[in-house]
Amino acid sequence: MNALSPSITITALPGIPLVRPGDDLAQLILDSLGRLGLRLVNGDVLVVTSKIVSKSEGRQVDLKSVIPSERALELAAETRKDPRIVELVLRESRLISRKAAGVLVVQHRLGFVSANAGIDQSNVDGSDDHVLLLPLDPDASSARLRARLHELTSAEVGIVISDSHGRPFRMGNVGVAIGVAGMPALLDLRGKPDLFGRELKISIQGYADLVASAANLLTGEADEGLPAVLVRGLSYASVEGRAAALNRPPEQDLYR
Amino acid sequence: MNALSPSITITALPGIPLVRPGDDLAQLILDSLGRLGLRLVNGDVLVVTSKIVSKSEGRQVDLKSVIPSERALELAAETRKDPRIVELVLRESRLISRKAAGVLVVQHRLGFVSANAGIDQSNVDGSDDHVLLLPLDPDASSARLRARLHELTSAEVGIVISDSHGRPFRMGNVGVAIGVAGMPALLDLRGKPDLFGRELKISIQGYADLVASAANLLTGEADEGLPAVLVRGLSYASVEGRAAALNRPPEQDLYR
Repeated sequence: MNALSPSITITALPGIPLVRPGDDLAQLILDSLGRLGLRLVNGDVLVVTSKIVSKSEGRQVDLKSVIPSERALELAAETRKDPRIVELVLRESRLISRKAAGVLVVQHRLGFVSANAGIDQSNVDGSDDHVLLLPLDPDASSARLRARLHELTSAEVGIVISDSHGRPFRMGNVGVAIGVAGMPALLDLRGKPDLFGRELKISIQGYADLVASAANLLTGEADEGLPAVLVRGLSYASVEGRAAALNRPPEQDLYR
Repeated sequence: MNALSPSITITALPGIPLVRPGDDLAQLILDSLGRLGLRLVNGDVLVVTSKIVSKSEGRQVDLKSVIPSERALELAAETRKDPRIVELVLRESRLISRKAAGVLVVQHRLGFVSANAGIDQSNVDGSDDHVLLLPLDPDASSARLRARLHELTSAEVGIVISDSHGRPFRMGNVGVAIGVAGMPALLDLRGKPDLFGRELKISIQGYADLVASAANLLTGEADEGLPAVLVRGLSYASVEGRAAALNRPPEQDLYR
């Protein structure tokens, strides 16, 4: 709008087809940008949903192949869930925090707290027998996508792999970053003086989560088919953040 | 960027002066937009920090006028905080959830959980003796700002009053909406079919929180002096959301 004022533009990338194992997400993103007449520039951030990263990495599971353990059968009866899904939740989790009808809140093996270990039954392939696990290592997936985009375009971009999480205390899901590359995950503003020169006391921003939430305004969660978003105009230090840094250690968690 | 793809633009509004009690925020916002050569259009969303709303509403408190209660004195000794600030935290809270050196996590009288009841010691007026309480009724403040902007411009806009909150489970503050008018606070996508026509299971978005977090990418928390942001291009139903709806009732809080 005006070069004198900080401004960012967030654009949903159209026409990304259903992703299959082995697909080159970087190329799909560049194809979509091309349709918009856009080229990547240094400092751009691409936010991609965990769903398409998982699909490209073959993290789809056929439920017919899953044999539930004793523990999964018990938990499934207790929560009235499909025992095969409960089995996958257990495999993807460090521990079960809470349970209720239809929901297991767990600490995911990736460190964050989420419902049903982020296992996704929607938009997989039209069959109710297939579900999608989160990427094995989303920070590594982000770094690979960043490297591949650099290879194809020479641009140095930031990457956020986003997921949608429910939250304690507040209603409604928000976007969070489960993978980060080429940009900060947390932004430490401590020591930066406020308008009157005093030090700010609590001022670490969940920067990559802010980016994921901003992108979530466009990706939606339903049938829009908009699994990638370009964020242009952010001003961030070139650091190698890791989404893992966004997990709050329990001993530092006064909010819990 | 391209009319064919959903796109939003977020612009920080420059040159908003230090706000004083009684100031007309709507006029300050329009003055700033004018400097950018922008006019409000229907559907625009303005995100303003709770800080400038509080200042305009005279929510500044001179600590010299605060007499701590017995309970405040005890809690202050326990947490090594200024007893006068603890007194204000108690007045602004329904209950104290957690305490540690320097921090009281409380359930605010407005319903949300926050550190130190959102009482702000930074950027108040250059004196360490003044602090700022949150607006008395931020949903009402939002409605007033929306009405005043409509009066001045005829535009129907959405308003979010934002605050910056720490979170359970995750590191880093994020923007949240503590006041909303003219737009949804929560967006209920349940029943909207996914790409394969099945119903989505969990799909209520914390829409106004997403908007607050997106704006937070530009407002920062320190000396930028950018307390208002224009979000243009969002597509939302014209409903009268209330930020109060974003507070999760404890009995529905499996995450806690």
